[in-house]
Amino acid sequence: MKIGILGTGMVGNALGTKLVQIGHEVTMGSRSANNETARKWASSLGERASTATFRDAAEFCEVVISCTGGMHSIEALQSVGAEPLRNKILIDVSNPLQQDKDGSMILGFCNTESLGERIQRAFPQTSVVKALNTVNCDIMIEPSRVPGDHNLFICGNDPAAKKQVTQYLNDWFGWKPQNVIDLGDITAARGTEMMMPLWMRLLQGVVGHPHFNYQIIRGH
Amino acid sequence: MKIGILGTGMVGNALGTKLVQIGHEVTMGSRSANNETARKWASSLGERASTATFRDAAEFCEVVISCTGGMHSIEALQSVGAEPLRNKILIDVSNPLQQDKDGSMILGFCNTESLGERIQRAFPQTSVVKALNTVNCDIMIEPSRVPGDHNLFICGNDPAAKKQVTQYLNDWFGWKPQNVIDLGDITAARGTEMMMPLWMRLLQGVVGHPHFNYQIIRGH
Repeated sequence: MKIGILGTGMVGNALGTKLVQIGHEVTMGSRSANNETARKWASSLGERASTATFRDAAEFCEVVISCTGGMHSIEALQSVGAEPLRNKILIDVSNPLQQDKDGSMILGFCNTESLGERIQRAFPQTSVVKALNTVNCDIMIEPSRVPGDHNLFICGNDPAAKKQVTQYLNDWFGWKPQNVIDLGDITAARGTEMMMPLWMRLLQGVVGHPHFNYQIIRGH
Repeated sequence: MKIGILGTGMVGNALGTKLVQIGHEVTMGSRSANNETARKWASSLGERASTATFRDAAEFCEVVISCTGGMHSIEALQSVGAEPLRNKILIDVSNPLQQDKDGSMILGFCNTESLGERIQRAFPQTSVVKALNTVNCDIMIEPSRVPGDHNLFICGNDPAAKKQVTQYLNDWFGWKPQNVIDLGDITAARGTEMMMPLWMRLLQGVVGHPHFNYQIIRGH
């Protein structure tokens, strides 16, 4: 498959590397086609990995994974434009984190909106599926690092796209479909993005490393 | 023990009933001492249950449980005043939920603040411990309704108060101390209050009833 990764950070790197390793053609998109980080990434992985502008990466691919910094995702996607994204699935992995005045990390927007919704609103011809944004990138690509059953949340307005993404998550990374919880339409992205403050507390003060996840346990 | 419950809703009712049943003296506080709901609750439970104003309930007790509607908690506590709460533990169970213009439930404030912080700021001589606000009240008082291990989050600025509350949670309701996760200071209440949007999605579209909880699973 041809997959476009938008963003050259830790998440884009981890997802892109894994996808190349299992045989896909991956283009890492960034502001310029010659982005240093993207080129380093591609050169270490051989001919199935390449670099491009955001626009060309989106144009090239069958499915887009948006993993730019969440406060910049809309801007990056606007530089792509609607046409290269039309009728494609876009998996939005980002959280709109930013630093507060006191240095702590907060969400740039939340509660009555979300990044997932903003992207879907800006690109109505694209099937936006919010996924993977509640786990660290090592867990995204290797869920078995956390023992037993634990959950991933997806949401989006297009049921067929969510089904397809659930299949990708299984094929690409090994997420069992029964552990992927469909929360409903894209406004549920509010809920998953708003898990970030708890996640950061668990990371910093409780678990001490990012390799953990949530399991939803049902009672009677 | 003498326990003051502020609030006559579902949560106050469930907590108060359980605490009376296990032998504590509970006063349910509300705006007026003759609140109909509170009187009904007390009359069904015998002499260990009583009703009072918010102020008298707080004055009467050794520990206060604040479970008014989260958007009204500060107002209720202001009617108590600082003196009856001085040097006491206040367990804040509420979430500041309100209805958005479109009818959906949102948080009235979040992200850069939280109800737990607001209460602690307004009552600096009181040890505010945020707890129990991530589970339905049936689970609060009977965690075994959800099978196996699952977690409760607490936070607050006073380590001794958190230790004491962890002990209460065990004595009163059966929460195993090893399943109670201390997230740090009271600003961590942002994280637990912000789990509400996900919780509501799980309730409505996924689990279909409120008897579920989260387990944090650690990997390597």
